[in-house]
Amino acid sequence: MPMPAVPIQRQNTTYRTLAESVRRFIAEGTLRPGEKLPSVRQMARQRGVSTGTVVKAYASLENLGEVEVRSQSGFYIRPRSGVEYPLPQMARPMARPSYVGVSDLAAEVMTSSALPANVAFGWSTPDAAIFPNRRIARMMASIIRDDPDSLARSTVNWGFEPLAREIARRYVHAGVALSHAEVLITVGCTEALNLSIRAVTKPGDTVAMETPVSFGLMQILQSLGVRVLEIPACPREGLQLEELRAALVARKITALFVMPNYQNPLGCSLSDAHKARLYALLQEFDIPAVEDDVYTELHFGAQCPRPLKAWDTDGRVLLCGSFAKTLVPGFRVGWCAPGRYLEPVRRLKMANTMGTPLVLQKTITDFLRIGGYDHHLRSLRRTYQQHLRLYSENLRRHCPPGTRLTQPDGGYVLWVQFPAAVDTVRLYHEALQKKVSIAPGILFSAQPRFNHCIRLNTSSPWSDRIQSALRLIGRLAAAQLDGAGEKSAAPDLQRQPVS
Amino acid sequence: MPMPAVPIQRQNTTYRTLAESVRRFIAEGTLRPGEKLPSVRQMARQRGVSTGTVVKAYASLENLGEVEVRSQSGFYIRPRSGVEYPLPQMARPMARPSYVGVSDLAAEVMTSSALPANVAFGWSTPDAAIFPNRRIARMMASIIRDDPDSLARSTVNWGFEPLAREIARRYVHAGVALSHAEVLITVGCTEALNLSIRAVTKPGDTVAMETPVSFGLMQILQSLGVRVLEIPACPREGLQLEELRAALVARKITALFVMPNYQNPLGCSLSDAHKARLYALLQEFDIPAVEDDVYTELHFGAQCPRPLKAWDTDGRVLLCGSFAKTLVPGFRVGWCAPGRYLEPVRRLKMANTMGTPLVLQKTITDFLRIGGYDHHLRSLRRTYQQHLRLYSENLRRHCPPGTRLTQPDGGYVLWVQFPAAVDTVRLYHEALQKKVSIAPGILFSAQPRFNHCIRLNTSSPWSDRIQSALRLIGRLAAAQLDGAGEKSAAPDLQRQPVS
Repeated sequence: MPMPAVPIQRQNTTYRTLAESVRRFIAEGTLRPGEKLPSVRQMARQRGVSTGTVVKAYASLENLGEVEVRSQSGFYIRPRSGVEYPLPQMARPMARPSYVGVSDLAAEVMTSSALPANVAFGWSTPDAAIFPNRRIARMMASIIRDDPDSLARSTVNWGFEPLAREIARRYVHAGVALSHAEVLITVGCTEALNLSIRAVTKPGDTVAMETPVSFGLMQILQSLGVRVLEIPACPREGLQLEELRAALVARKITALFVMPNYQNPLGCSLSDAHKARLYALLQEFDIPAVEDDVYTELHFGAQCPRPLKAWDTDGRVLLCGSFAKTLVPGFRVGWCAPGRYLEPVRRLKMANTMGTPLVLQKTITDFLRIGGYDHHLRSLRRTYQQHLRLYSENLRRHCPPGTRLTQPDGGYVLWVQFPAAVDTVRLYHEALQKKVSIAPGILFSAQPRFNHCIRLNTSSPWSDRIQSALRLIGRLAAAQLDGAGEKSAAPDLQRQPVS
Repeated sequence: MPMPAVPIQRQNTTYRTLAESVRRFIAEGTLRPGEKLPSVRQMARQRGVSTGTVVKAYASLENLGEVEVRSQSGFYIRPRSGVEYPLPQMARPMARPSYVGVSDLAAEVMTSSALPANVAFGWSTPDAAIFPNRRIARMMASIIRDDPDSLARSTVNWGFEPLAREIARRYVHAGVALSHAEVLITVGCTEALNLSIRAVTKPGDTVAMETPVSFGLMQILQSLGVRVLEIPACPREGLQLEELRAALVARKITALFVMPNYQNPLGCSLSDAHKARLYALLQEFDIPAVEDDVYTELHFGAQCPRPLKAWDTDGRVLLCGSFAKTLVPGFRVGWCAPGRYLEPVRRLKMANTMGTPLVLQKTITDFLRIGGYDHHLRSLRRTYQQHLRLYSENLRRHCPPGTRLTQPDGGYVLWVQFPAAVDTVRLYHEALQKKVSIAPGILFSAQPRFNHCIRLNTSSPWSDRIQSALRLIGRLAAAQLDGAGEKSAAPDLQRQPVS
């Protein structure tokens, strides 16, 4: 099969550029899964390079999971069939609200992911290596050189106004009418969510939310003593609005927590039509919504989706975001646009952490103004998209049959559903012995479900270490299934398929 | 009167060194309040300098409030009598626990103090100008140049271990047996206090505390929905232990909040004997204590006082501190050593703000290790002591008779008690019109008391602007008293002397 003709500067055709051009044809669908690649000799002749260069290029593509070798036959584009690896199944609705239990395991997963010695699949903090750290460092160095006193100074508690302006400006461009005066700067999205939930609930109240939901949120809700009512979310369409309506009719729900774009951990999004319907529901039942917006700008499609806040005409949506996923995780600078709850949230901010470090806010402001933030975001989106694809391909290759995977259009977390007999808490402990940290599914619900699921952070750049870690996960899951056959007569509460 | 003979290098005797040497003699008691200084000509002859130099030196001492001119007579050391300006009075005990009311005024005071256009007497954040900002900037620049990825990286949630080690090491030297594994890093002391109080109380519980108490703490307690029982604190001896015992006997108290060293706002401290007795009380009634330790290292005497934590044999003291008053206010890096509550506080930290920015923790670690922190602290203590003296002297000069002032041995806040007819909320609004922000006394209690008191932050370096601002406060208070004479027949609830 001849390669499509594209102008290539021969002197630059190293194995890297060759591999990159093949990958582009795969990504664009010119070369399709299952098709055979040109033989090494054909390709070398076509591109005017040595056979050694082609061998290296094909090997790197194989390493990336793009192609596979079939013995005695040649290189093939790896199949990526939605039939063999369907989406994870949706959870069942929850019978009644529940307090969130204390989980030592959540703290353990966070800690084991933070240790540099481990492969950090478990938390949702992105890998430091994929950010423009040098550029940020230069901007910060220039700020502290020109104005060392800014290290010591404090801003008003709700943040550095120029940063609030930049955030509001970006939202306005994205179709959300937001004034900078409505924006508070917080210590990461975590503080924004805390303040927002505290502003609209009191202990004992019930918050409705998607299930599964990030265990960071679970920890917040637990620490605030509110009850949760989990509403099923579909890996494709997101929060099930009919289920939500039924719950709102059936009982007193004080507020909704929702992640309409690239939900953590499912990666699903609500359509615009569903966002409008959701907002109408909030109005009908007169409840506020706390919206977690951290992944919105990490869309893979051309269009940036709009947050639910874009439909908010009466200030009932408390929008929470952060630069931790998009620019600089370590700064822990986030924001909150709490609508009609502005004053209570401001007061809670003051009481909770007083303020947010000014020098970090100034650095981000400079980056948004003159650092090429949009250019950086475009490149970051490609990075995340590529990682998700590579990780998914490899999981499909290594995980036992019956495993299901999400297919997110944005963000960087994957939700993996193994066959029901796999116990992912056991998998967590086994993988950690090999220095791989994953997040077991039971952390993502207040009920004992999802114990055959895991969430994977795919932000770390591809490497042999990552590839081995994914292979390890697949192998450990398969080994549990092999072992499970012998024991399946005895019922095991820990392993019953609960979702 | 001849000046005491001291070796002075003549070529260096500018008016500044001359003024400094006179001030040293005043500070050491060689020259006493009320005494006359040598005449300008005498002094010029003694020191071998021009009369112009002496005039400039005396003028600068007058400006600093050290000396005063008496018409036709010469320069005199200003009197500083404890008789004319006694300490503020102690508050009465509280009849029953009370929730803390919502105060817009507290937020207003914080905001008006944060605005650079205003003289910032109102909050307790120290002035950025008195810190080694250039040195910190250089250290930070070197960290981010050598390791730009540290900007993006996150630590485990409870902090950067080398910083925890430095903090623990300092406590060990100060007589507190503390392991680094017991220390969490927090977003300022504010977060440390939040997490500590949340770990030991639930909404509706009663916390005993000194009165008056910093309004930042009031805001925290309000936001957490706990009730307060205010125990009188004496401006000299601190928390009244007999009153505390009576309260513990009379009702259910869940925890104590206490600031045993340089209490905010009174500046008073418990003696070691009283700390031991207080700890015995905690044991007897089996309650924990949240200890705010932010001012301890700002002692003016030779000895650093020990925190209550030094007596803690069974982990019931949750020690909270910060670098905001001692090194770099804008970083908002604090700590918490929560004793037996370590695990719950760690979990709350994770849920509240996830982590503390790593680059800030690394910079402080470097400063503690190689930045000359102890040398800096010695100089900072002198600065704070000098400011307190200058501010106090000026207030005594300008405030109406009957005004009382605290005399702290550490820290940098002053508590001013005007005659009962002065309404300091009105004073706050009047002063703010002239761009001076003060903290009215009513913010420092859950009850309507201290309305004739204010707290003043004395961290800003002495200047004409500061001097005018203090004069303004005195004049506005006096003007209220002049006006009050006419209206005093009519009872005014807002102004009744409640403490």
